Amino acid sequence: MRTSIATVSLSGSLTEKLTAAARAGFDGVEIFENDLLASPLSPEEVRARCADLGLSVDLYQPLRDIEAVPADVFAGNLRRARHKFELMRRLGADTVLVCSSVDPAALDDDALAAEQLSELAGLADDFSVRVAYEALAWGRHVSTYDHAWRIVETADHPALGTCLDSFHILSRGSDPRGIEDIPGEKIFFLQLADAPLPAMDVLQWSRHHRCFPGQGGFDVAGLVRHVLRTGYAGPLSLEVFNDVFRQAEAGPTAVDARRSLLVLQEETGIAEPPAPVVPTGFAFAELVTADTEPVAALLGALGFARTARHRTKPVDLWRQGEARILVNAGTAVRRDGTRLAAVGLESPDPGGAARRAEALLAPVLPRRRAPEDAPLDAVAAPDGTELFFCGSGSGGWRADFEDADHAPAAGSVRRIDHLALTQPWHHFDEAALFHRSVLGLRAEDCVDLADPYGLLRSRAVSNADGSVRIVLTVGAAPTDDTARAQHIALATDDVVAAARRFRDAGGRLLPIPANYYDDLAARYAFADGELETYRELGILYDRDAHGVLRHCYTRTVGRVFFELLQREGDHRGYGARNAPVRLAAQHAVQAHAGG
Amino acid sequence: MRTSIATVSLSGSLTEKLTAAARAGFDGVEIFENDLLASPLSPEEVRARCADLGLSVDLYQPLRDIEAVPADVFAGNLRRARHKFELMRRLGADTVLVCSSVDPAALDDDALAAEQLSELAGLADDFSVRVAYEALAWGRHVSTYDHAWRIVETADHPALGTCLDSFHILSRGSDPRGIEDIPGEKIFFLQLADAPLPAMDVLQWSRHHRCFPGQGGFDVAGLVRHVLRTGYAGPLSLEVFNDVFRQAEAGPTAVDARRSLLVLQEETGIAEPPAPVVPTGFAFAELVTADTEPVAALLGALGFARTARHRTKPVDLWRQGEARILVNAGTAVRRDGTRLAAVGLESPDPGGAARRAEALLAPVLPRRRAPEDAPLDAVAAPDGTELFFCGSGSGGWRADFEDADHAPAAGSVRRIDHLALTQPWHHFDEAALFHRSVLGLRAEDCVDLADPYGLLRSRAVSNADGSVRIVLTVGAAPTDDTARAQHIALATDDVVAAARRFRDAGGRLLPIPANYYDDLAARYAFADGELETYRELGILYDRDAHGVLRHCYTRTVGRVFFELLQREGDHRGYGARNAPVRLAAQHAVQAHAGG
Repeated sequence: MRTSIATVSLSGSLTEKLTAAARAGFDGVEIFENDLLASPLSPEEVRARCADLGLSVDLYQPLRDIEAVPADVFAGNLRRARHKFELMRRLGADTVLVCSSVDPAALDDDALAAEQLSELAGLADDFSVRVAYEALAWGRHVSTYDHAWRIVETADHPALGTCLDSFHILSRGSDPRGIEDIPGEKIFFLQLADAPLPAMDVLQWSRHHRCFPGQGGFDVAGLVRHVLRTGYAGPLSLEVFNDVFRQAEAGPTAVDARRSLLVLQEETGIAEPPAPVVPTGFAFAELVTADTEPVAALLGALGFARTARHRTKPVDLWRQGEARILVNAGTAVRRDGTRLAAVGLESPDPGGAARRAEALLAPVLPRRRAPEDAPLDAVAAPDGTELFFCGSGSGGWRADFEDADHAPAAGSVRRIDHLALTQPWHHFDEAALFHRSVLGLRAEDCVDLADPYGLLRSRAVSNADGSVRIVLTVGAAPTDDTARAQHIALATDDVVAAARRFRDAGGRLLPIPANYYDDLAARYAFADGELETYRELGILYDRDAHGVLRHCYTRTVGRVFFELLQREGDHRGYGARNAPVRLAAQHAVQAHAGG
Repeated sequence: MRTSIATVSLSGSLTEKLTAAARAGFDGVEIFENDLLASPLSPEEVRARCADLGLSVDLYQPLRDIEAVPADVFAGNLRRARHKFELMRRLGADTVLVCSSVDPAALDDDALAAEQLSELAGLADDFSVRVAYEALAWGRHVSTYDHAWRIVETADHPALGTCLDSFHILSRGSDPRGIEDIPGEKIFFLQLADAPLPAMDVLQWSRHHRCFPGQGGFDVAGLVRHVLRTGYAGPLSLEVFNDVFRQAEAGPTAVDARRSLLVLQEETGIAEPPAPVVPTGFAFAELVTADTEPVAALLGALGFARTARHRTKPVDLWRQGEARILVNAGTAVRRDGTRLAAVGLESPDPGGAARRAEALLAPVLPRRRAPEDAPLDAVAAPDGTELFFCGSGSGGWRADFEDADHAPAAGSVRRIDHLALTQPWHHFDEAALFHRSVLGLRAEDCVDLADPYGLLRSRAVSNADGSVRIVLTVGAAPTDDTARAQHIALATDDVVAAARRFRDAGGRLLPIPANYYDDLAARYAFADGELETYRELGILYDRDAHGVLRHCYTRTVGRVFFELLQREGDHRGYGARNAPVRLAAQHAVQAHAGG
C-alpha cells in the first residue's frame, strides 16, 4: 500500500519538505496550498522536483467553501476551481480535496450540495482531476463522514468521491464501522492523524495537536481496517497539524512519520516487518567521560568494583550484582561532560532485534570495533543513545573484556532498575513510539512533573516483567536546562544499607528538605526511628496499593546521577510524587555550587 | 483591598517566589504545599522571611480528599489534618484550603460531608485555623460553588467557610450571581484566575492554561463585583497554573500579576488609578544602530529626508509627510544590529499618561538628557521598548532638534500606519494587557501566522481611530529566531507609486513567488495589468467586507524592515492571510544571503 504525507506535517520550505519525505521513504505527498504559494518554484518545477525524488503528488488541497451556495456565488467558486484545476495539471496532481463548507452563508441543502459538487466534478473531469469531498468535523452543515458520503452518492458523478480523515471521524466520536458501507472505489483518499485525549475545542485540537498514528489516543488502526474492507486502494496519507512538528527539523520528523505508518501497516496486516524481539534485561549502561576520576569515585562509593577492561578500547567494566556500568574514556567523547551514551539490552535474538529496528527505520550504527572484537548489533534511538542488542552466549560482548584484578563487589545493589533518558524537545512523542514499536516495550501514561522552573513530562516504557524499564523525560521548552540530566537507578533490597554504605565510603547523597519528612509524618504512620533514618539519609518514600518505594539520589557528575531504589511488594512507580522535591533539591545544590 | 498571590503562580525556589511577590507589591501569599516541601527553609524561617518582606501568609493549601468518607478513613484524614494545622501555626498561616474530594471512594452524601467538615473545623479551631472549603470543577460529588456553600451552611461551624475560585466557577459556566446569596463573612477566601476560551478538558485547562485576570476570556471583574456585594473583606488572591509562567522569571511575572489585579480593582471600583490617556498618534519611531549608512540609504530610497538633528545627541530626524523616524547612533547602542528601540506617542496629556503608567507598575525611565533638552516622560514596555509620551505643544521633543538643510520630502508616504514589535516569549499575554491597560488601547483577537519553521502568534492593539496601531508578535518557542524582526509600516495613498519610487531609488523590495499571484488570479478579478504590476513589485493584496489592503516589504536591515501599505475603504487588517507567504519569502532571502 502506498504511503503519503501532507507537506503541512513537516517544517521548512517546500523543497526541504519534499526532500525529507523522499528520504524517509514516502511514495507521495499531499501538497498544501500555502506551501506552494510561498515557494519560488513554479508548479512545473515542483512537479519535476517530485519526479526526481520519486514522489507522486497524490493530493492538492484544499478547495474550501464550494458547495450549497446561491447560484451567483457558485459561479465564482467554479471560476476559482478552474484556476486550481489548471494549476493541478501543471503540478501533476490528479486529486483535489474539497472540505465541507464552513461559510456561514452556506445553505443546509444536501440536494443543492450534491448538484453543485456534481457540476464541480464535471469541470474537474475536463482536466482529468478527481474531486475528494471530505466532512470537516466543524463543517457548517456537513460534519460527519456518512453525511458527506450520502451527498457524494446522491451526486453520482464518476469524478466525485469522498475523502476520509481519521481525525475528523474519531474526534467527533463517530462510529467508523459505517465506513464499510462505502464502496472502496468511491473512497478517493484516506488521511490519517492521531491525537491526544482528552480533547479541547475541536478546531484548536485539530490545528495544533494532531500527531502521528500511535502517538495519540485514537484507534487509527481500527479505522484503517474498516477502510481496507471496502477495497480502498489509494494511499495511506498522513495529514498532521502539530505546533511542535512545525518547528522540528523536517528530516527526523519525516522518519518518525514513516515509522508510525509502518507500525500502522503492521497492526492492520498490510505489512509484515520482522517481529519485535523484546529485550529481557539490561546488559550494561555505558557512560562516556573525558575524566574518569569522579565517575570511578562515585561507582566505588556505590559499591561497584572495576572487574574487567576492554581488550582494545579504553573502556572499564564496573560491576555489582547484575548491574554493569561501562566507563568509556575513549577519544570520541564529546566535551560536554560525563553522559550516558549507550545501553546494552539483553536480547534472546540480537540479529532479529536489529533487523526489526532497521525495518522500522532506526539508524543502524557502524560496528566500530577491532577485528578481534565480538560483532554487536546496535542502532541509534531518537535521542542519539546507542542501543546494543546483546546475546547471552559466551561469544557476546563480555568476550571483549579481560578480567581485571578486582573481584565483583558484594554490595546490596542487585541490578539496574531503570534508566532515565532526557529526550530532545521536539522528539518526545517519537521516542515513545520508537521504544514501543522498535523494542516491543509497553508505554505507560505521560506524567507531568513540576520542576521549579517549568513542567517536565515523563513517560515510562518497560517489558512485561519490569527487567527493562526506561523513563523518557522532556523539559518544558527547547531551552530548558533542567531536564538535561540522565540517571541510572540501581535496584537494591535494602536502600538504607546501600545509602549508608555510600555515605560512609565518602559519597554525597542529595539532601532532602526537612519539610518533606514532616509531610510524610502527616501522611503515613512509621515505625519508631524509621522516618529519622530516611531524613538522615535523604531517602524518599512512596506507597500505593501495590507496595512501597524507597529511593535516594547521588549528586550529579557531568550530566549523570545515580538513584538507589528499593521496591517492596509490586510497586511499579518511579516516585513521580517525590519528583518535585527531588528536582528542587537538585536545583538548590546546583545554585549552591554555582554561587 | 489586600492582594495576594499563590506561590504556584511564579517560578523558582520558594524564596525567589516570595521576593518577587513582595517586590511587585503584593500584600500576602498563598503557600502551595509542594513549594514548602521542596524548600530548605523551616516553616518558622519561611514565616520570618515573609514578615521581613512585609508579606502575610494568607492561605496554606491544600488539604485534599477530606470529606464524605467512611469513619475509619476520616480518622486518618483528621490525623493528617492535625499535622498540617501544627505546621500552619509554625508557618503563621490562619486559613487552610480544603478542596472538594476527587477520591473515587468519596460518598455522595452532603450530610456526611457537612458533619465531617464541621468536625475538621472544630479541630482547626483549636489551632486558630479557619477552613475554607472550595468546589473543584472536577470534584467527584461537589463541583459547583453553590453546592459547596450549601454544605458549609449545613455544617454551620464558625471556623468553616467557603473559598471561591473564579476558574472553578466560570470554567463550568456557573452563574456567578448566586454568590450574592452567601454572607460575606462566610466567604473566607477568593482566588482569581482567568483563562483563554474556548476550552479543552477542564482539568488540563485548569492545570496548564490559567492566566491572570484580563489576559483570558472570563468575566472575572463581573464575578468579583458579586463577591464584593456580599461584604467579603478578605484578599483578592491570584491562583494561576500556567505552563509558561512556570518557566518565566518570577520577578516580571509577579509585576504582570499585580498589574492585572490593579486593572481588576479599577474595573470593579475598588481602586482609582489615574485615568488612561489614550495616545492620538505616533510622534516618532526611533531606530538605534551602530552603522547609520544602511538605514540612511533605506530611508532615502523610501523618500524620507533628513530634516533635523538633535542638539546634544547623535540622533537624526528623518521625515516624510507625518512619518518621523529617529536614527540614533549613540554610544549606548547594543551591538545587536539595527533595532527599533523607542516609540514616541502623541499624547494630549503626557504627564497624565506617565502617571497612569507608573500607577500600573510600568518602569519609569530616567530622563537621560542634557540640561537644555525638553523633559520627556517615558516608560519601558514589557519587551524593553521605550515609550515616550509627547505633547503637541512647541516645547515638546521637536524643540531638541535643529533643522538640517534638507526640506521635508514630498513622497507618497503619509504617516506611520503601525509598528510590529516582537515580544519576549514568556511575556506575550503580559504585553497585550500592558498596552491595553497602561495606554488605553483596544486589543484585537490573537491570530496564528504560519511561518515555515513554526507558528507565530500576533495580536494588534490600537486606538479608536486607528492612528496608533501596534502589532505584538511572538515566536513559537523561546529559541525561535523567526520572530525577531520588527517592522515599521508606512501608510501611503498609492503603494504602487511608493514601491516604484523606492525601487527606482535603488531600494530592494522583498520578492514574492509567482504562485502567489496565480492564486490571487483565482481568487479575485483584477483590472487589466493590475496583477502584473503587483507581481512586478512584490505587492501583496487582501480584501474583506470593509475594503482592500495592498502592501509590500523592504529587505531587512539588522532586525528592522519597512512595509509600504495602502488601505482602501475601511480595511483594518494587517495582511494576516499574506503573512505565511511574506515570512517564507523572508526566510528565502535570508537563506540565500547566508549561502
